[in-house]
Amino acid sequence: MRKIVNIKEKYAQFSDHWSPRVVGELNGQQVKLAKVSGELVWHDHATEDELFLVQRGTFYLEFRDGTTVELKEGEFYIVPRGVEHLPYTKNGEEAWLLLLEPATTKHTGNVDHALTQRKAEFL
Amino acid sequence: MRKIVNIKEKYAQFSDHWSPRVVGELNGQQVKLAKVSGELVWHDHATEDELFLVQRGTFYLEFRDGTTVELKEGEFYIVPRGVEHLPYTKNGEEAWLLLLEPATTKHTGNVDHALTQRKAEFL
Repeated sequence: MRKIVNIKEKYAQFSDHWSPRVVGELNGQQVKLAKVSGELVWHDHATEDELFLVQRGTFYLEFRDGTTVELKEGEFYIVPRGVEHLPYTKNGEEAWLLLLEPATTKHTGNVDHALTQRKAEFL
Repeated sequence: MRKIVNIKEKYAQFSDHWSPRVVGELNGQQVKLAKVSGELVWHDHATEDELFLVQRGTFYLEFRDGTTVELKEGEFYIVPRGVEHLPYTKNGEEAWLLLLEPATTKHTGNVDHALTQRKAEFL
């Protein structure tokens, strides 16, 4: 049985925010889906680049140099390793994200926070 | 200047088939876009897993065990390293793909073919 992943069907299987689900794994990297709303927490990943692809809504990444990246549906941005960032949405709006990062990556990076996920669930 | 990648805009920048463009790089992996039509060639990648995400049309992967995977828009499949596969579309229809694989991956793997790309172009 060969495993085809239908992304829409995967999104339909969860609704909680800031809790990425793993939907694929290759070359030590994981493909994750997340629904997010509001603000996560400032953090970085010392040795891991992280890709954020927006699949619904509008999503923001703020950086310590004062710049902000606004990502709309169909747009992605790669946060290089070591760069501190704050992920958020405005006005509590929901955004759906496809994430790509090493299997070792914790979503709040160097920071332990109430929203820090202990272990990413496989869907 | 922070680099936001708009996937639709990238697809609009090329029209040739079986000639992936690199649109992102992270952790030694590359994100590529390709437009394909018809058949590529049987090949494998000895040490590299390869992800195929269909963003338009319908795309097929045939395997030596006789099974075929049919992928529609919004579906992806990961071909594990070492597994021989034949990528194709039916009736000359065009499909648009987002690929994820190591930066070292050649798109025809172990096979040198007329369609083998010498070097993936960055968009």
